[in-house]
Amino acid sequence: MKLSLNTATVKYASLETAARLAAENGITGIGPWRDVVAAAGGAAAARKIIDGYALTVTSLCRGGFFHVPGWLADNQAAVDEAAILGAKELVLVVGGLPDGSKDLPGARQQVADALDALVPYAADRGVRLAIEPLHPMFCADRAVVSTLGQALDLAENFAPHEVGVVVDTYHVWWDPELFGQIARAAGRISAYQVCDWVLPIPADALLGRGHVGDGCIEFAPITEAVARAGYTGHVEVEIFHQAVWDADPAATVATMAERHRAYIGEV
Amino acid sequence: MKLSLNTATVKYASLETAARLAAENGITGIGPWRDVVAAAGGAAAARKIIDGYALTVTSLCRGGFFHVPGWLADNQAAVDEAAILGAKELVLVVGGLPDGSKDLPGARQQVADALDALVPYAADRGVRLAIEPLHPMFCADRAVVSTLGQALDLAENFAPHEVGVVVDTYHVWWDPELFGQIARAAGRISAYQVCDWVLPIPADALLGRGHVGDGCIEFAPITEAVARAGYTGHVEVEIFHQAVWDADPAATVATMAERHRAYIGEV
Repeated sequence: MKLSLNTATVKYASLETAARLAAENGITGIGPWRDVVAAAGGAAAARKIIDGYALTVTSLCRGGFFHVPGWLADNQAAVDEAAILGAKELVLVVGGLPDGSKDLPGARQQVADALDALVPYAADRGVRLAIEPLHPMFCADRAVVSTLGQALDLAENFAPHEVGVVVDTYHVWWDPELFGQIARAAGRISAYQVCDWVLPIPADALLGRGHVGDGCIEFAPITEAVARAGYTGHVEVEIFHQAVWDADPAATVATMAERHRAYIGEV
Repeated sequence: MKLSLNTATVKYASLETAARLAAENGITGIGPWRDVVAAAGGAAAARKIIDGYALTVTSLCRGGFFHVPGWLADNQAAVDEAAILGAKELVLVVGGLPDGSKDLPGARQQVADALDALVPYAADRGVRLAIEPLHPMFCADRAVVSTLGQALDLAENFAPHEVGVVVDTYHVWWDPELFGQIARAAGRISAYQVCDWVLPIPADALLGRGHVGDGCIEFAPITEAVARAGYTGHVEVEIFHQAVWDADPAATVATMAERHRAYIGEV
């Protein structure tokens, strides 16, 4: 599997810098976040930059957050950006509980309803919606979809080219059902994202993700399972960690490529 | 369901104080931790204190930690203490990955092997081993059993009176399979523990548990499901939170009883 740089890994770098560092390290894919696309002057300008380095856009992060007002227009805008960027996969972080709500079944139903509303719009524009299950520690505030199995239950209401799922090692490594669910996901794996589970969980629980190899996840069996499920796309490295963000982005991308060779495969 | 005070909720109180506060608030159960039992002079002395307040010992916390050297002798000692205390349920926090290990399937197999070794010893002494699935955020360092379904898969290798499971709202509230698995647990629910999921997750991720009602968990449906599964024991309140620990234990126990009436039922 080839390597892709998710721009969150070099959070403070511009899209131009991220794309250049990717190309300089032999990396052929990039997965931009929307804020980086906006800072580059919008989707058309961003695509020009990315095309200048001959990179494949492996996904756009992110749509979702269906628990906040204005979600539909915002997600339609995200689909439009993905289409302009040539990103075939729009990653959805589906959102948590609405403010003050304790209605988890209701929030989960809202995700299903939001997909119903959004899928035709996305399908018309050639963009697949990629449901990302987040680690259960984020269930209350970021994603009420907590397991790959649950993501697939939602995805299977639609055609495989309309709705897929993201396998992110950080979010799913603990799941006793993981390997069965990866097999079940054949044809629907929109993205394979990697980073490591590093202890202790930091004060900002979002920022506990480390470089591949720095934590306790065994990557080979998960990578093999994803490949066995027929996935032939890139592996996106998406790291949220203050020390990684504070490092020189050139060093970060070089480390990322080195770890990919050590733990995953050819760049 | 009647109320029980897990001594972790008043972490800095002695067993004598905890037992007295329980009784003063009309609480009929207590779930001691082993350190509190030791500080009271051992299991026999602890039982005398507890009997003095006519409390039921709803569980002993905890055995497990099968990933550390010396686990078998330590767990046998925990069983002995449970038997002396009259605790019919020994809660098992099964342990995480051994130091430096990334072998999650191996750690999970070790839990199954440890149960094989420990169950006869416990059954001979009338103590049921109660597997507690912990929230997946603790998979690496505290418990490789992460879901109720996984706990039941392990428990079902034994008779219902030999191995049960713990339903702790903090650990399982997010689980899309929760209600089906609670139904499946009929006859094997060793303890029903409650506390709330409070954001943000604190710097010490162990200490994010709040009083019932302070977070985002909807207790009624879970309590009803546990009752429907035939559970007639106490509800243990087990809170790990620095501010709760720093409060006057008398206030903590009073709040606990008040929240129980508001969210769960009669004390």
